[in-house]
Amino acid sequence: MNNIQSYILEHKNRFLNELIELLKIPSISADSAYSPDVLKTAKAIKTSLEKAGCDAVEICKTDGYPIVYGEKIIDKTLPTVLVYGHYDVQPPDPIDLWDSPPFEPVIKKTDKHPEGAIYARGACDDKGQMYMHVKAMEFMTSTNQLPCNVKFMIEGEEEVGSANLATFVKNNQEKLKNDVILISDTGMIANDVPSITTGLRGLSYVEVEVTGPNRDLHSGLYGGAVANPINILTKMIASLHDENNHITIPGFYDNVEELSKEERAEMAKAPFSLEHYKKALDIGAVYGEKGYLTNERNSIRPTLDVNGIWGGYTGEGAKTVIASKAYAKISMRLVPNQDWENITKLFKDHFESIAPEAVKVKVLPHHGGQGYVTPIDSLGYKAASKAYQDTFGKTPIPQRSGGSIPIVSLFEQELKSKTILMGFGLDSDAIHSPNEHFGIWNYLKGIETIPLFYKYFTALSQ
Amino acid sequence: MNNIQSYILEHKNRFLNELIELLKIPSISADSAYSPDVLKTAKAIKTSLEKAGCDAVEICKTDGYPIVYGEKIIDKTLPTVLVYGHYDVQPPDPIDLWDSPPFEPVIKKTDKHPEGAIYARGACDDKGQMYMHVKAMEFMTSTNQLPCNVKFMIEGEEEVGSANLATFVKNNQEKLKNDVILISDTGMIANDVPSITTGLRGLSYVEVEVTGPNRDLHSGLYGGAVANPINILTKMIASLHDENNHITIPGFYDNVEELSKEERAEMAKAPFSLEHYKKALDIGAVYGEKGYLTNERNSIRPTLDVNGIWGGYTGEGAKTVIASKAYAKISMRLVPNQDWENITKLFKDHFESIAPEAVKVKVLPHHGGQGYVTPIDSLGYKAASKAYQDTFGKTPIPQRSGGSIPIVSLFEQELKSKTILMGFGLDSDAIHSPNEHFGIWNYLKGIETIPLFYKYFTALSQ
Repeated sequence: MNNIQSYILEHKNRFLNELIELLKIPSISADSAYSPDVLKTAKAIKTSLEKAGCDAVEICKTDGYPIVYGEKIIDKTLPTVLVYGHYDVQPPDPIDLWDSPPFEPVIKKTDKHPEGAIYARGACDDKGQMYMHVKAMEFMTSTNQLPCNVKFMIEGEEEVGSANLATFVKNNQEKLKNDVILISDTGMIANDVPSITTGLRGLSYVEVEVTGPNRDLHSGLYGGAVANPINILTKMIASLHDENNHITIPGFYDNVEELSKEERAEMAKAPFSLEHYKKALDIGAVYGEKGYLTNERNSIRPTLDVNGIWGGYTGEGAKTVIASKAYAKISMRLVPNQDWENITKLFKDHFESIAPEAVKVKVLPHHGGQGYVTPIDSLGYKAASKAYQDTFGKTPIPQRSGGSIPIVSLFEQELKSKTILMGFGLDSDAIHSPNEHFGIWNYLKGIETIPLFYKYFTALSQ
Repeated sequence: MNNIQSYILEHKNRFLNELIELLKIPSISADSAYSPDVLKTAKAIKTSLEKAGCDAVEICKTDGYPIVYGEKIIDKTLPTVLVYGHYDVQPPDPIDLWDSPPFEPVIKKTDKHPEGAIYARGACDDKGQMYMHVKAMEFMTSTNQLPCNVKFMIEGEEEVGSANLATFVKNNQEKLKNDVILISDTGMIANDVPSITTGLRGLSYVEVEVTGPNRDLHSGLYGGAVANPINILTKMIASLHDENNHITIPGFYDNVEELSKEERAEMAKAPFSLEHYKKALDIGAVYGEKGYLTNERNSIRPTLDVNGIWGGYTGEGAKTVIASKAYAKISMRLVPNQDWENITKLFKDHFESIAPEAVKVKVLPHHGGQGYVTPIDSLGYKAASKAYQDTFGKTPIPQRSGGSIPIVSLFEQELKSKTILMGFGLDSDAIHSPNEHFGIWNYLKGIETIPLFYKYFTALSQ
């Protein structure tokens, strides 16, 4: 690819401003109050794909939020890259922990981002990383260097489980036909330690409700004689881990992939400082499953985390009440070979079975997805690796991520092609947290690296 | 006392309407947003005491909400009754469970209240029961039948721990000097089973905060490797009870009063149907400390209940986050001889000691108070018993209540006089719950019974 760096330099400010405009729209898919903003974002994506040179750009209706599709078919005999990304974002709360409003992007310099980072919900996950592909596409089309066919599929429900994407993919196999799927919705180890994600964890997300008495009760008149649903819920949740932090749900580990000594030794080579890790999170100690290292606990091992809990009086002051109901949102990260629907059933059966007779329990499955592993000897991985070598001057490290992109395994199953996860964000970018940000250097480096993937993938495919 | 029944009959509607007006003011002391309403209620109480014939009525400033004082001294050689009550109310939430707005009183007939009940926050606790004394006072003064001296002390912080009442009492011992303290802020067994509360539980109310990482984290990238403060909080709370539902805090039971076989046998005589109890609460089973009956668990045994818990994402949909912080409000009901400040310290020390190194824990004591037992051979108890015999045609049953009125033990300590707890509410009146109500029959029966207490207490004191 010629003069990509000069093109980026020339258009840098516009690339930033376009992303900033996109980040101003609060496309929170989890909260129906923001529905108009999510739809507005879909329209904005459509426009940006058209400007980038895509043909046949359309907003495809689903039973939920629409999927934006666009393509550029230059020669049916050439390979086709399918780019996937999402335009919805996580809710910003706790809002009061943001240093600047989540949907009023600001640029600030940090130690990790001396050239500045854009602070806004979605800056990294995934508007910023998705938009790198749109700008890379613009470069290739406007300079007539697009080496192969491209298809874009940008959805608006990734943060709530991509419920309708599955149907869309199943019903549009011909339209989505491709040779490789390219996604930037993960991270890399550091700006000077490029890495490519080769594994993702699966997910099972449930909500539980524990009901005690049929109304809130005075804790003096009834306290001690009636099951308090909050006390019971804490007992039930606490029992889901044993003293070694193994998950106690029967059958939970049955299909868990056990890595070999060699594989674990290979993983341990990735640069990691426990001291820096603890310092960055301001924690006195790490905590997790006995017998595994931190970088194993958060990648190759399944987890069970309470993502939210509520019940009783949570306002100012004191209220001496025994609540009628208590609730929790619980998610389990799964590893390859664990079937998320089976795990969800195991959780439901177990959680209901441990409820004392004094309460009623409901388990509501939210969503989930399978884990995924990609081989490092595929054409796609090799092309990505060469692209990074050109732009970072280093061979990227293959890395398992603890995160989940549930639809990746669906893509392989339905579209029969492998996914390459070229992520340019950093763990410290605080995705899903207050003060999410994305480095300007990373944003531009992504735009620079992506066209090279196209070049090498096309060449390797000949 | 002459023609009290005819007086009540004549003024019944006014008595109801005056209470309804009082109930319309949302005097929620726990929520500072309602501060103007709490103060407005104090003024309304002042006016009502003046109309009832009190002299020297004043709104006494404190560091919190004011205390309304009024008195009628007819003869210093006669005994003096000090009436205590409170004009503040519990927060109404969960608001959506009310069948009618909590501060728009409505009258509805129920099985237990065939003559109708007033539905509103504070109807029973304590505006309705406190106002019975104001109307009883009105009867005695307007018919020139007041047999002794009366002092009223109505506070506005009972539902938040009466923090400033203690100082007021300590600083006004002469002004508050009395021979017996009369309070209607408890209940009775049933309209045809009158009872007088002879025991109250103490209280220690704390709030706990568990902090994990310094910011909310992505549960995929960090899940399994970092202590999740919600998971930890559930483990810590669950550990506060053992498998027999004994509280595990070291030293917690050291001073707990153990009742004799005889006393427990006496208690067991109070009419109680486990089937009705479970049916009324729609629970499959009762739940509590091994070795004790339901009516013991909620009266003579201490408890530990979570009154509220919150942390992480509690909104619509799903958010895959590990929260930075998790919180709970926890109250312990105490029995006579347990010192609430000591118990609070035992809780704090224990809770902090069981926190794993991976989290930070804060324990914030809210408020508390001592338990109380009143002897049934006192003049006050005898006078109350005779009054009930006249109006109910039955001897009232002495009963221990599980509730707490922390300042009762303070009164005894500072003012050296016993408190008589003449409560006319029912357990089913749902105080502290949605749809709190107070039977019109009970309201009027209280107004009828109170003057007789004055009569017999004066007579017995001669």
